[in-house]
Amino acid sequence: MQVSEIGEFGLIKLLTQEFGITYPPARRTPAPAGLELGIGDDAVVTSKREGALIWTTDTMVEGNHFTPGSTSWRDVGWKALAANLSDIAAMGGVPHLALVTLTLPPDFQTDAAIELYSGLHEAATTFSVTLGGGDIVRSPVFSITVALSGWTLEEGGHTAFLRRDAAKAGDLVAVTGQLGAAAGGVRLIVQGPDFDAAGHPESENQLRDAQHRPQPRVALGQAAVRAGLRCGMDVSDGLTQDLGHIATASGVALRIEAAKVPVSNELRVVFPGDALAMALTGGEDYELILVGTSEVMDKYIGETERQVTVIGRVEDGEAKVTIVDEGGKAMTFERRGWDHLAET
Amino acid sequence: MQVSEIGEFGLIKLLTQEFGITYPPARRTPAPAGLELGIGDDAVVTSKREGALIWTTDTMVEGNHFTPGSTSWRDVGWKALAANLSDIAAMGGVPHLALVTLTLPPDFQTDAAIELYSGLHEAATTFSVTLGGGDIVRSPVFSITVALSGWTLEEGGHTAFLRRDAAKAGDLVAVTGQLGAAAGGVRLIVQGPDFDAAGHPESENQLRDAQHRPQPRVALGQAAVRAGLRCGMDVSDGLTQDLGHIATASGVALRIEAAKVPVSNELRVVFPGDALAMALTGGEDYELILVGTSEVMDKYIGETERQVTVIGRVEDGEAKVTIVDEGGKAMTFERRGWDHLAET
Repeated sequence: MQVSEIGEFGLIKLLTQEFGITYPPARRTPAPAGLELGIGDDAVVTSKREGALIWTTDTMVEGNHFTPGSTSWRDVGWKALAANLSDIAAMGGVPHLALVTLTLPPDFQTDAAIELYSGLHEAATTFSVTLGGGDIVRSPVFSITVALSGWTLEEGGHTAFLRRDAAKAGDLVAVTGQLGAAAGGVRLIVQGPDFDAAGHPESENQLRDAQHRPQPRVALGQAAVRAGLRCGMDVSDGLTQDLGHIATASGVALRIEAAKVPVSNELRVVFPGDALAMALTGGEDYELILVGTSEVMDKYIGETERQVTVIGRVEDGEAKVTIVDEGGKAMTFERRGWDHLAET
Repeated sequence: MQVSEIGEFGLIKLLTQEFGITYPPARRTPAPAGLELGIGDDAVVTSKREGALIWTTDTMVEGNHFTPGSTSWRDVGWKALAANLSDIAAMGGVPHLALVTLTLPPDFQTDAAIELYSGLHEAATTFSVTLGGGDIVRSPVFSITVALSGWTLEEGGHTAFLRRDAAKAGDLVAVTGQLGAAAGGVRLIVQGPDFDAAGHPESENQLRDAQHRPQPRVALGQAAVRAGLRCGMDVSDGLTQDLGHIATASGVALRIEAAKVPVSNELRVVFPGDALAMALTGGEDYELILVGTSEVMDKYIGETERQVTVIGRVEDGEAKVTIVDEGGKAMTFERRGWDHLAET
């Protein structure tokens, strides 16, 4: 069935039914947890709560951010929320409420819309997010925009979060997890499902999964703030480019040792020759970059059971990022990361 | 210049410069009023403040919600924020923070982007909204999505707002302002700028303005809550259809007297034969529907200097909307309002 056959309100009714929500809401329909007023009014009203607010939004466009056929609609839904969750993780925050906007071609299938929402729901349940409504409009192109809010942690009565402009000379630079798997996944997905890069199907599937089902580092972000870290961001456009944002915002030089960068094990197996370059410049890893004193960083690394690797340090000097090889020589790469508007 | 020539970060830099914001933010760049952390980080952080939160989002897609050439980019920017402001007005709330997402074709002109932002800025300044960042991605089709948050008013220590499901038998139904002008504007815009419907160019321009530069009823929404009203919504999809939402949500019948509906003066001049039908079913008026006891309504009408007109009443019975003529006979119309996905 095409969405144009049931219309905007029919589609909202179908999707809400699928997930056990009464729409349009009858009188005295209880609002979902955390809300005073849920879907079906002009706006959503959340319950009273103290604290600062974090806000972020992120969009995926068909044919640009994903290709239907290569990516399931369920994974599109998961990833649309996961990318926003990563921005809340990058602040060390607690995710709360999401609004979802869909632009749909009239011939978009209602089954695909249900699949998409099942992926959104799965991510929302996993990370305790309330889906609070949004907007559905007609367009020649499918896109999904999620706006997500969250709460900052508090330390000693003050809001406490990770920001990009707080790196200081002498600090250490660290990353969570391993890098490059999502870039490896893209390369495999572009080749099609039957492409067998190097006879390692299990590793290849893990790379595809890294691209399709990113795991935002919400818990590690909160742990960073609790450990006393105050500088960080997520790796969404590529490590080198994203480090550049911290260097610029903080007005410092970053010196990164390539040999210390945790490259995805699966990427080393499937693309051994390019693994390091892909880990340094590939996007969508959704790991976190964290910057802080060695004392605080040691504490954080201990508490997180070594899910975090120190890859370099902050130095005085012009804002820039230098990646050095084991001999201390600066390395260069063809690209630093993603730009969403430039011709590629 | 095309946006693909300067890329995502170049475009953000250009737009922020144009409006006096430092991007990327240098260390210690002060955040805009009401924010702890402004544009240029992973997310925006607002200052601590108590109270419930209102959230809404609304999208405009080129070729569907507007046609470039017929609508200036400045007006597109104004209207994208105004439509969201109307949803905050429909809750009787105080608007606060907006995130703006653009999907842009690579050949989109940077001059158009600046125009668009000047319209957004004008609406933001007029209604005291902080523009807090957002997302810019590539797409075959231009679209603009605004996510807007606001605060509810408080009465006696409790959050107080307008909702759709609070109409009770015996209540009066009222609307703010006049209806139908935006629908008249659409009809003129479709005909092109040189179309002279009836030799009343001044009235025609006012209809076009109503469509291009809607004035959300933020102050009248807040005044409604302060007067004690608790049921209302905005007229965005057409009066009859929107009244239907209140009837359904509240489980009541609404009886509306057509002769009492305040039809736009300009619409009566330009389209005398269709004015009533257009006022009853045309979308995008962004006036407010308000429902409450005659006592509270009288108080509200007095306080707002008669910007509000009673058009009918709430009755027990099956959830439906009946429009009656001066003889008390039920009227029917070809359409009730807008559906954003159905084939038209």
